[in-house]
Formats: sequence, C-alpha cells, structure tokens
Amino acid sequence: MTPHKIGIIGLGKIAQDQHLPVIKANPDFELLAVSSTRGLTHEDAQYTFQDYRELLKLKDVEAVAICTPPQVRHQIAREALLAGKSVLLEKPPAATLSELEDLRQLGEKVGKTVFTTWHAQYNKGVEEAKKALAGWSIKRLLVTWKEDVRHWHPGQQWIWQAGGFGVFDPGINALSIVTRIMPEPVFIKSSILEFPSNRDAPIAANLEFQTGHTDSDLQAVFDWRQTGPQSWDIEIETEAGFTLKLSHGGSCLEIDGRLVVKEDPAEYQGIYRRFDALLTIGTSEVDVAPFRLVADAFMVGKRVQVDAFED
Amino acid sequence: MTPHKIGIIGLGKIAQDQHLPVIKANPDFELLAVSSTRGLTHEDAQYTFQDYRELLKLKDVEAVAICTPPQVRHQIAREALLAGKSVLLEKPPAATLSELEDLRQLGEKVGKTVFTTWHAQYNKGVEEAKKALAGWSIKRLLVTWKEDVRHWHPGQQWIWQAGGFGVFDPGINALSIVTRIMPEPVFIKSSILEFPSNRDAPIAANLEFQTGHTDSDLQAVFDWRQTGPQSWDIEIETEAGFTLKLSHGGSCLEIDGRLVVKEDPAEYQGIYRRFDALLTIGTSEVDVAPFRLVADAFMVGKRVQVDAFED
Repeated sequence: MTPHKIGIIGLGKIAQDQHLPVIKANPDFELLAVSSTRGLTHEDAQYTFQDYRELLKLKDVEAVAICTPPQVRHQIAREALLAGKSVLLEKPPAATLSELEDLRQLGEKVGKTVFTTWHAQYNKGVEEAKKALAGWSIKRLLVTWKEDVRHWHPGQQWIWQAGGFGVFDPGINALSIVTRIMPEPVFIKSSILEFPSNRDAPIAANLEFQTGHTDSDLQAVFDWRQTGPQSWDIEIETEAGFTLKLSHGGSCLEIDGRLVVKEDPAEYQGIYRRFDALLTIGTSEVDVAPFRLVADAFMVGKRVQVDAFED
Repeated sequence: MTPHKIGIIGLGKIAQDQHLPVIKANPDFELLAVSSTRGLTHEDAQYTFQDYRELLKLKDVEAVAICTPPQVRHQIAREALLAGKSVLLEKPPAATLSELEDLRQLGEKVGKTVFTTWHAQYNKGVEEAKKALAGWSIKRLLVTWKEDVRHWHPGQQWIWQAGGFGVFDPGINALSIVTRIMPEPVFIKSSILEFPSNRDAPIAANLEFQTGHTDSDLQAVFDWRQTGPQSWDIEIETEAGFTLKLSHGGSCLEIDGRLVVKEDPAEYQGIYRRFDALLTIGTSEVDVAPFRLVADAFMVGKRVQVDAFED
C-alpha cells in the first residue's frame, strides 16, 4: 500500500523527540509537511509553514498529528477535520472534555479518523497486565507517579496555569494505564489536590478510587517534587491472591515478583502502528476515560495550599 | 394504557415538593413504594422501606426516581438497573462524569431507560428560546444566576464539601438551559472559582465561554451571596441583531423587549411527561452536556480564596 501522507502541526519537544523519528522509521507513513508558529522546520518535510492553515490546504495530506500545547488543539483539530484530514491528538487530547466530545462528533460527521493517543498505553507490560487481570476482582491498587518537574518541564509555564493540568500532565499517563488494565471501571471517590501558593495548578495529588467492591483499597499518589530516583509504578493485588507490578511507566511487568516483561519503551512506534490501522479501516478511536477521571478529580477535589514553588 | 408503577428513593425536599405531587397528578404513573433512610413515609405509597434494596425487590416496580443527594446516586442506580428497573436521575445525575458514563453503558446493556433530568430545561420559555435561536450565531451571552444560599439550602452541609458542587448546584440549572438553547456547542474558555476560606466548594464563579466565533462575548456569573431580589436570567444577542431574555429561571421569555412567554413553572410535570414517553418507547435520554461543562469549569478553573462564609 502507498504510505499515508502526514503533516505535523507543532514542532515542540514531543514532535522532535518522538513523532519525527518514529514517522521516519515507519514505511506506512510519509512526512509531507510540518508547521511551526516559531518557524522551525525539519529536513524530512517537503513543505514547511508557520501557519497550520496553509498546511491544511495541501490536498495530498491525508492526516495530521497535532503536537501543540492542549489549549489550541481543539481549534486546529476542528479546522483539520473540516478540511477533510484525519487527526492524531497528542495527550491530553483537548483543553476540556466538551472540546473532545465536539471533535468526536465532528469526526463522525465528516467521516474522518479521530485518534486520541495515550502513549503510556503502548508499553508491552500494559498489554500483558491487562490480559493477566481480565476477569479478576482487584483488592488493592497503588499508583505511585513521582517525578521532578524541574527536570521534565524546564521553563514550561503553561503547565502551571489554570487549565495547564499541573501534576496531572504526567499523572494522566498513569490514569491511562489504569483505565486500560483494570477489569472493572474505576471512579474517583475522593481527591486531594495540593496547590503551591504561587501557582494555579496542582503540584501533587492523592486520589482514592472505587469500583463496585466496597472492601478494595485503590489509591494513586502523584507528586512533582521528587528529586533523586523517579517513580512510575503501579502495584495491584487481586482477590485471587496474585500480585502484579508495572514499573518504569509500564515497560517492566512483574507478576508475583517474577519479571515477565522488560522492554525498551517503544510507545510511539505502537501509536503509529495503531494510527495506520485506524486510517486503513477508516475508523476512530476516542478514549475519553483517562481525561474524564482527571476532570472528576478536579471537580470533587479538596484543595490544599502548600509552599510556593519556583522553577 | 396501565400506568407505570414507580418507586421514589430518597424523600428529601425535592421529592416532597415536586416528585410526589406531580406523580399523584399524572395518571400515567402510579406511586407504588418509597424508601427513606430517615424512615419517612408518604400516604400515597403502598409500601415504605428504609432500605432501597427492599424496594428494588418489588417485582411490580417498573421504574425508580432517585432523589437522594448525588454522592450515592450511582450505587443506587446501578443496583436498580441490575434489578431490571428503569431509572430517573435527579440533577446532578451522579457524583462524577465517570459514574454517569457507567450508568449510560449499563442502561444500554440491560435494556432499561436511564433518564437524566435537568428540570430547568422544561420551562416553556426555554423551548421557545431554542426555536428562536436555531440557525443564528450568538454575539453576546450573559448568564446571571445569583441567589441566597441561606434561603435555598438551609443547613445542607454536603453542598459545601468537596464534591458538593457549591454554587454550581444552582449554576448547573443555568448551564442546562445554555446547552439546550445555544445553536452551537459552547466550551469553557476560562473560569474563576471563589472558595470561602472555610469551605471546600465555590460560593461564586465567573465563566467565560467560547464557540467557533472569535468575536463573541459569552459569560456566566454565579453567586450564592445574593440577598434581596434573586436573579436567574439569561440574555442573548444574536448576529442578526435581535435580543432575547429568559428570566425567572426560564419561565419568562422576552424577544426584543416583547414578552413572548410568561408561565408558571411546570418543570416536573414536563419531566414526568418525558419519562412516560421514554418508558413507553423503551429508550434512554442521557444528556451529559451540562455536567461536562461543570467538570470543565473545575478542571480549568483558577481558584481564588474569599472571606469565610457561615450559614
């Protein structure tokens, strides 16, 4: 088959680190164009624009990957769909749930693919964990997602603004794994959000989940103040007695202490394999669940003020 | 046709003031049972229970109206659907969006009606406003929803707790009108939430909306500190030039200053007419839009601390 001709809108860190090299290595895709408000370009692209609207005018572009910050994603995706392009949405897929629902409906209306990507879901350990847990009830869940914001988000001011998600920017990766592997739907039971006195987004969060089982103990701890070793771990104990531990963001899986999966992360390779399949079939994949849990956590969250935080 | 045999779960203020008299006056419904954890009863009900699980065992009950506080609604609705009963959900329909999505899916799975009621939508002025606005673009929207919480929610502590919604408890009525009448989807652009220093829910909120039109001015102001005259008004100016004003919560409608609708509110009569139709057809009506806007407003909201508030 001829490769899908694709454009990238937004040439920030995630586009540079992941989308560009992964597209280059995947024969099912051909990078036709990029757009960057900052005037960046890339040697692989035949066309370069500052205004994404120019990119959307290219007839040969079948699909665009939208790698901008989330605040402008909805407007760009809307115009892309109306221009007849399929869209791949970086995470989080929009600024609000209402915007995402609008894109889902618009994709259906114009008959183009809308694909919400949750990169953490594409680790092999996640898929194996899902299989292992299928059909069992969960007794205990502990998500520990602790990292150093100064290292991972240097100088990114938008993450600290209202609507910037704060620690839920990494935390939503954990939630996207939880919603993928849990054999039953999970709901936010309570949420404590720690806001630095000088910031409009939380630096830490403690979530308590519930399912239908009243005796389960389901927790998540997100923290952006972690120096030294970073933690991206999910531990689960089933009613059947066996335990499961996903670590390193889902690339390692242990079951009852035995290492079952240990692979170098190849998240974006998985994303583009999936996008190829969706485009070929001509269908959408709009997974709202992780984003909805974040909105729920804010809506029911108890706000606690903590020390000011400087970059 | 024989009337739908119905049970009411939760005999608080809204059940007493609205559901009981409206069901009594509607020949399409027959009140079979009520349940109240406080042991309340009602002369119209043949059966009275303290535990709703007993009510759900009654084979003749076709549907239940769940009038409890929202925190327990999901669990009760879930059990009701699994017991083969259709459910009417008071507003807000659940504690979180994930819970509502679960009920929507479960209703589909078991083939029973799930009905999210937004009582403010059932005013005649709302329906007429929707018709008048269809096809026009909106230039200006101002929602003013200001009431005295001490008068309307005396002693209700749950509304001030995290997850209790605060001023969005009335505000969601306004949003349910906005999502119903606006000819285009609306999104939260920004949100400022005022939290009293001694409370975990907002006492006031300022919302800015956006649609596809960049030059529109769309705002909502919610405030629970209003003494004296209460305001439940929505003013709209269209690009065509005509203006529209809904007041008294939607029961009065003026177009270009001319009074078009002025009716005594009959919101719950409309709700039960609709429920009868849904049960008869055997379909669901799950309108998530107002609830999703509330979650979005919390998620992108900038929190501001204001003076402590005592009941």
